[in-house]
Amino acid sequence: MSEQVVEAELTWTEDGFRPGVQLAVDAAGRIVAAGELGRVPSRRLPRRALLPGFVNAHSHAFQRGLRGRGERFPRGAGSFWTWRQAMYELVAALDRQRLYELSRQAFAEMLAAGITAVGEFHYLHHEDAAARDHAFDEVVAAAARDAGIRLVLLATVYQQGDVGRPLAGAQLRFATPDAAAFWRRVDRLAARLDGPLQSLGVAAHSLRAVPPEVLAELQRQARQRGMVLHLHVEEQRREIEACVARYGRTPMELLNHHLEVDAAVTAVHCTHTAAPEMARFLAAGGNVCLCPLTEANLGDGIAGVPAMLAAGGRLCLGTDSNARIAMCEEMRWLEYVQRLAGERRGVCCDGDGRVDRALLACATRHGARALGLRAGRIAPGCWADLVAVDLDHPSLAGWDRDTLLAAFILGGRDDAVAEVFVGGRRAWPAARPAAGS
Amino acid sequence: MSEQVVEAELTWTEDGFRPGVQLAVDAAGRIVAAGELGRVPSRRLPRRALLPGFVNAHSHAFQRGLRGRGERFPRGAGSFWTWRQAMYELVAALDRQRLYELSRQAFAEMLAAGITAVGEFHYLHHEDAAARDHAFDEVVAAAARDAGIRLVLLATVYQQGDVGRPLAGAQLRFATPDAAAFWRRVDRLAARLDGPLQSLGVAAHSLRAVPPEVLAELQRQARQRGMVLHLHVEEQRREIEACVARYGRTPMELLNHHLEVDAAVTAVHCTHTAAPEMARFLAAGGNVCLCPLTEANLGDGIAGVPAMLAAGGRLCLGTDSNARIAMCEEMRWLEYVQRLAGERRGVCCDGDGRVDRALLACATRHGARALGLRAGRIAPGCWADLVAVDLDHPSLAGWDRDTLLAAFILGGRDDAVAEVFVGGRRAWPAARPAAGS
Repeated sequence: MSEQVVEAELTWTEDGFRPGVQLAVDAAGRIVAAGELGRVPSRRLPRRALLPGFVNAHSHAFQRGLRGRGERFPRGAGSFWTWRQAMYELVAALDRQRLYELSRQAFAEMLAAGITAVGEFHYLHHEDAAARDHAFDEVVAAAARDAGIRLVLLATVYQQGDVGRPLAGAQLRFATPDAAAFWRRVDRLAARLDGPLQSLGVAAHSLRAVPPEVLAELQRQARQRGMVLHLHVEEQRREIEACVARYGRTPMELLNHHLEVDAAVTAVHCTHTAAPEMARFLAAGGNVCLCPLTEANLGDGIAGVPAMLAAGGRLCLGTDSNARIAMCEEMRWLEYVQRLAGERRGVCCDGDGRVDRALLACATRHGARALGLRAGRIAPGCWADLVAVDLDHPSLAGWDRDTLLAAFILGGRDDAVAEVFVGGRRAWPAARPAAGS
Repeated sequence: MSEQVVEAELTWTEDGFRPGVQLAVDAAGRIVAAGELGRVPSRRLPRRALLPGFVNAHSHAFQRGLRGRGERFPRGAGSFWTWRQAMYELVAALDRQRLYELSRQAFAEMLAAGITAVGEFHYLHHEDAAARDHAFDEVVAAAARDAGIRLVLLATVYQQGDVGRPLAGAQLRFATPDAAAFWRRVDRLAARLDGPLQSLGVAAHSLRAVPPEVLAELQRQARQRGMVLHLHVEEQRREIEACVARYGRTPMELLNHHLEVDAAVTAVHCTHTAAPEMARFLAAGGNVCLCPLTEANLGDGIAGVPAMLAAGGRLCLGTDSNARIAMCEEMRWLEYVQRLAGERRGVCCDGDGRVDRALLACATRHGARALGLRAGRIAPGCWADLVAVDLDHPSLAGWDRDTLLAAFILGGRDDAVAEVFVGGRRAWPAARPAAGS
């Protein structure tokens, strides 16, 4: 791809939507200049408003296979743990082909929802569990490449079935018992990824699945390689009880104790995390990733978002189980759940009291920070990952430059996303075949 | 329109989705027979699954004009009451033309979301507040007619600005101080509505706006005419405090005391209603309408849905402020908010423990009951109000007949609704002009 100059009717800047903004994008797909450049656009986008592409900081693509399933409770109410059983049944049934199809499907739906980069928290490693073949790692990378989404593959360590318990059943497909073998695998994978669209990070599944000292060593290795580190933290009360019983500390206390927390560390969920430990983690620069649709579907509970924000927390968002893939719905329900719980409006606000801008930051630059990406802003040095919103969409009718973002996030239909660009190339909708072909 | 026979690939019956179901629809738009009729279809719908059209039991269409507005909180968090101030500013600015445009826009968006019938809780009566001209009543009816949606216009009584306080400012556009004049107006309107697509019910705005004895007389008049009666109940704690201070009873206690509660009475919101009075209202046959997206946007609080269901409550759904118009999102968050609050899955279930069927009932036949409509089922005697779901939509990929409904409600994209029929006619998308025209 050669250098291009993109000009939409409106473009999101740190100062709101502005007309007449040109983006110079280099052949590698990076924005090199943005503003009133006085250039002739090579790509005009009339009746479109450009936003930074959404960054999905937490996904398990294969769980797309559960859509519409596990929603029957004939023996009374279910829980996270009954859902996990259904998920393990899916895990046991997957082969390479089916995993590819599900992952590609999920990534394509993400693009259609304006998501241009995904942090795939990948713990489903083995097609042949006995051989620990890691065959599924490259399957996921291939699915992302073929879908055209930017991928940060978070290679995940999973050592035990629960605190102090061996892996069992479907969990054997997750097994990474040997740290040296894990890192050999990661380093080999790094060499095979698809150029600028793909990079690697690591994850510890959770402090259920990884003992604290293994987590600490994982971080040391990751830091040497400049990789981010993610883990699930305190999504369920049972995890807290198990850690306290075994280690005398909650998962977040263990994390604060054993890790050097900084911007390269992301704790996912933190649904039941106590405010003081949460504040300590955030003050050190850690990221928190919330997954409103999944946490709601799973009945996890209501996270203490006001305390997180009071501690200066940079929250990002993930589609997690991919039960529904809709970044605007994630954004609005991040705020709405807190409005319901606190009986007040305007919980997630920026310094000017704007909800729309605060939610956009969660869905873009905070996610990019958590994944170690130069993305999430329309600014020089960032990837040209862009969402083009349809200014003629009926669900936005009545917009002006000041209300457009809130109308889109809180009131827009899913199909108000008109086009999506990754690294300057149109990734969604797929180009139609030329006439006659 | 002449009689027709409709056959889709799948059709929702009380027994799930079935293939080969034919619907005979008479010239008036009613289903007269449904099943394997052995007829030649006049309208085939391949790759479509038919559901009963959604019934939106509570809407204020004009509030579509607030989309994207009132989401800035520069002086700290807002509340329902700061939102109401923004709404009153819109009310003060509307004229006949603008009200028509906003209402028609809202009704068209409802159709696109699969909503075939709306209960428009209409309290914005007067273009000329001093003359009490009721000019806006027919504007709303015209907008619904032109959009093609089935309308139950709930003509609303509004007598005081708050408990014991006179109307003021924008509220003067709501004023219906004289009961005799109100009913003359209602009876005249009944004669002018648009045939089988439009009917009338009444509402009392709330026990803030209508004293209990006026409410009781309103019900007597409504019962004589076979009309349903709706009112807002206990959306905000302040309303409860004001009623207790003035009358020594909560709004729901007043309602149970002063009304003959039956299937023709619908209480909207009941966010803060105490369980015993709630159970009494439901045991008498009353309906409760919840509005998950609006209640979340406004920060109302979390309603006691488990207690409502335990009391046999038939819950219906409304899009209320129309901040976003998405009936599937209303359905899933009716359930999801309760999962978050109770940390368990499967709160709204039918007798078989199925969440999808319970939520569909809320969005269809429970709403039809609340509005007094023969609708909300695909069955003889009901209007042929239908939603055609796109079986090839990517967001539903992987469906089977058992999972399709849950996949659509919990995981479908907005544009998985392919076509919508009202009284047997296609109401959305609008027919394209013939080639060359």
